[in-house]
Amino acid sequence: MPAPFPPVDLSRVTRLLNIGPTVLVSACHDGTENVMAAAWCCALDFMPPKLTVVLDKSTFTRRLVEASGEFGIQIPVVDLATQVHALGTLSRNSEADKLDRIGVRMFRFDGCGVPFVEGCAAWLACRRVAEPHNESAYDLFIGEVTAAWADARVFRNGRWDFAGAPPGMRTLHHVAGGHFHALGEPIDA
Amino acid sequence: MPAPFPPVDLSRVTRLLNIGPTVLVSACHDGTENVMAAAWCCALDFMPPKLTVVLDKSTFTRRLVEASGEFGIQIPVVDLATQVHALGTLSRNSEADKLDRIGVRMFRFDGCGVPFVEGCAAWLACRRVAEPHNESAYDLFIGEVTAAWADARVFRNGRWDFAGAPPGMRTLHHVAGGHFHALGEPIDA
Repeated sequence: MPAPFPPVDLSRVTRLLNIGPTVLVSACHDGTENVMAAAWCCALDFMPPKLTVVLDKSTFTRRLVEASGEFGIQIPVVDLATQVHALGTLSRNSEADKLDRIGVRMFRFDGCGVPFVEGCAAWLACRRVAEPHNESAYDLFIGEVTAAWADARVFRNGRWDFAGAPPGMRTLHHVAGGHFHALGEPIDA
Repeated sequence: MPAPFPPVDLSRVTRLLNIGPTVLVSACHDGTENVMAAAWCCALDFMPPKLTVVLDKSTFTRRLVEASGEFGIQIPVVDLATQVHALGTLSRNSEADKLDRIGVRMFRFDGCGVPFVEGCAAWLACRRVAEPHNESAYDLFIGEVTAAWADARVFRNGRWDFAGAPPGMRTLHHVAGGHFHALGEPIDA
């Protein structure tokens, strides 16, 4: 069971994405779940909060998003690096037991149908904003964030704050292949 | 004069953005230049490389992009944090001498009309891919990257590698207001 994580005020949701983390995209349709890794996810608007995410036509997760009209974006951390890499390389198209093989543990927040991955730093429930031209021409999906939650050890008072948190709770930023960088020290302008 | 920076192969351009850095957007029309900071810039496609960037309707830079059809995306580093914050808070709409006040030094690469900011880690010259609905409804612009260059101290062999580089050469990741995080240590899955 995950700890009870506090909700993030919708007016602060874009802050979760400003740091440019690698994310996991989760979705469920008709009882079938999947999760993929994505480096191409970005804030789009403040209020209501929106984001963009690129979902290749070959991905199993994209079909679940199209069928259900909703998806989850979650922000994994250093402790999940091996799982994140596996989620971005194995496909449920050929590996029906992908999530079990990788050992991903799923959970749901009360009152929200989107499946989420345990052990992340933040979770964003999204409603697909249908834009067929973008989806077809660019694989670009727009989501409106309807609810969000974060682990208060690293995101509190509406902003990231890693002071005092374990190093394994740092966000991941994709370099290439199985290589990432963790987020580093604070810099104040 | 900036050092001679090697070009980045177009097939590797998305790697520059995968880490999710805060960027600077530069543009020029009819001899008028401007630069703004943006946390909402993201890779969109591999080849030809494309990216998305959100440019609010109120920004001076957006009008230069619309008029000229091209813009620059550059990836600033810790040593530029104070300038990045100022470029994101001052507007040339009210401060005609914005760039001089902030002390930004501009330069151009041979054969490329886009103005760029000195002292960054990488520079991407972009051609606007006109998508009027996205621009109007979401302030979302698509750019095709036509050329890119990077500082070989931190990006070489087609990937980020900060080993041996000065700490001030780390990329910036926006938290809130004038607060950023530098990119941290490598994590291999």
